[in-house]
Amino acid sequence: MTSSHAERRAMQRALELAATPGVPLGPNPRVGCVLLDADGGTVAEGYHRGAGTDHAEADALAQAGPAARGTTAVVTLEPCNHTGRTGPCAQALVEAGVRRVVFAQADPNPVAAGGGETLRAAGVQVEGGLLADRARELNRVWTFAVDHGRPFVTWKFAASLDGRSAAADGTSRWVSSTAARHDTHRLRALCDTMLVGTNTVAVDDPRLTVRDADDRPLDRQPLRAVMGERQLDPGRRIFDTELTPGAETVHLRTRDPHAALAELYARDRQHVFLEGGPTLAAAFVRAGLVDEIVAYVAPVLLGAGRDAVADLGITTIADALRPTVTDVTVLDGVDGEQPNVRLTMTPCPGPRQEGH
Amino acid sequence: MTSSHAERRAMQRALELAATPGVPLGPNPRVGCVLLDADGGTVAEGYHRGAGTDHAEADALAQAGPAARGTTAVVTLEPCNHTGRTGPCAQALVEAGVRRVVFAQADPNPVAAGGGETLRAAGVQVEGGLLADRARELNRVWTFAVDHGRPFVTWKFAASLDGRSAAADGTSRWVSSTAARHDTHRLRALCDTMLVGTNTVAVDDPRLTVRDADDRPLDRQPLRAVMGERQLDPGRRIFDTELTPGAETVHLRTRDPHAALAELYARDRQHVFLEGGPTLAAAFVRAGLVDEIVAYVAPVLLGAGRDAVADLGITTIADALRPTVTDVTVLDGVDGEQPNVRLTMTPCPGPRQEGH
Repeated sequence: MTSSHAERRAMQRALELAATPGVPLGPNPRVGCVLLDADGGTVAEGYHRGAGTDHAEADALAQAGPAARGTTAVVTLEPCNHTGRTGPCAQALVEAGVRRVVFAQADPNPVAAGGGETLRAAGVQVEGGLLADRARELNRVWTFAVDHGRPFVTWKFAASLDGRSAAADGTSRWVSSTAARHDTHRLRALCDTMLVGTNTVAVDDPRLTVRDADDRPLDRQPLRAVMGERQLDPGRRIFDTELTPGAETVHLRTRDPHAALAELYARDRQHVFLEGGPTLAAAFVRAGLVDEIVAYVAPVLLGAGRDAVADLGITTIADALRPTVTDVTVLDGVDGEQPNVRLTMTPCPGPRQEGH
Repeated sequence: MTSSHAERRAMQRALELAATPGVPLGPNPRVGCVLLDADGGTVAEGYHRGAGTDHAEADALAQAGPAARGTTAVVTLEPCNHTGRTGPCAQALVEAGVRRVVFAQADPNPVAAGGGETLRAAGVQVEGGLLADRARELNRVWTFAVDHGRPFVTWKFAASLDGRSAAADGTSRWVSSTAARHDTHRLRALCDTMLVGTNTVAVDDPRLTVRDADDRPLDRQPLRAVMGERQLDPGRRIFDTELTPGAETVHLRTRDPHAALAELYARDRQHVFLEGGPTLAAAFVRAGLVDEIVAYVAPVLLGAGRDAVADLGITTIADALRPTVTDVTVLDGVDGEQPNVRLTMTPCPGPRQEGH
């Protein structure tokens, strides 16, 4: 039996529920669930509101109460099979008397997977894959992280038209425009971790917080991660917790990108915003551990100074990195500043991406 | 007496005539002329078709014949007062019995100026400045060159996202896309001179011709100018005249941008397309002799290699060159190539632009 028109419509609704604005990003995927009666009418709806709260199925079952018996559960992700902070959803659906389950994305998480099998074994009809692409896109970063067992890495850099991030004397405020810097804060807020090297902390002393256009810190702050073996002065602004309550900081004492990502993944981190410096970024590129590149180009000429991108081990033009451009956006200047250009790119699979 | 509605309409028409497609670019400005009778009806129209041919006024007078008597001549540029390859237009208008002359742009050329005075002295009513801005824009480069006594300089460079024009081993084919290179040929065709340094000729051996998308040379080729004191191998492709008939080459034996532009201006050159190398371009920037910058940014990362822009004498961020961006265009890639971004800029007047 394949999914009905009503189930397809319900899945679209479940995707909407999953994407409810304001649902906090966290280690868990966004999931929506709709319970349908035999006539295809909606009995209850539910969605997941973040780690520690009910899963979408449990939320819908709680709304439905006894009316859940005999319904079809339409859910954007295969019901989980493990007991985490909440009980396994597959078991809860069986106990509530749900007759049929239609899900979109199969659970890629080896710990949680198997919910479909549990349901079938209990005599529930199960169908997977309905609008699965849309469900995967909804949790693009989570899916990537679970699939790869490491966080998704967005490398961001800003450069002058001639590829500099600072002038010859080291001054760098500012190469890019106010609009580009605000845009960077918007992107930081979409990640759960910001990562820099110890050298950047020592030299630039960034706050590494997410702030709004009025320079006020947002309530939710991504983890501030520094990596490298160098000892850091605890007075650096990255360690400050007074100005930005809730902003945590971790010092990963390694120079190996693989090790750093493994440690962050063990801390439930799924999306790393890699901001520098150039040597650290180059190490990630060389290790094939950059999954997205965001470059801000400022119409500024310096002629000399600090390179925005460090040695990538490329010696000849045939080996140049030629990422696929997914977006080009002109960020208009405000207050008389010049426009900056943002390029968003996906690294091409190539020799540098293989072998890991 | 101010210009009438009919004269304004006639000036718009004269501007259209001046901009007739296919009129060859050359050392002379584009000019259009309309003769009106006393009722504002058109008696004749004319326009200039390039050096050695009739000026617009002479063209219109020839069309009108005896009917020119008593007309108002509406012309986009102040009638010339000097005898060049054709006679002075001011005198011709007087002799034809033209009663009144309305012009747009005053002639900035000290050699040719004074036509308005000559006309007034002969009893002709003269009015200047009608739609003058549009007329100046029509001959933007010519006006600039006459005003400044040197050619207008467009500096073009292409760079990877990290500011490189070649890989570490010197290979550079290609950093930018096919679409960007075609666009460069389109811009070359709008200039009358392409300028490179002797080092570029020695290292890159460019043909420095304007070719179409099928790599065929266009009929009209800008002058190929090389500057520098180094002796050049006559076998370099820039000296080749067989593959590209009509392409002339000149070697300017100086390293001084001022001297090079003076020599080119003496050869009736008004628009120089400065293509490299970086040291030569930096010399022009430092001398305040760059009037427009066209940068092609390719989504390519090299991490090392030849800098697209050489030392500009800038040591601190406060002194960065921050040109005004007049256009940003994304050049879509063809045949699977990635898009490139073209930025067109005007250098800001600043310390580096003063004193010359």
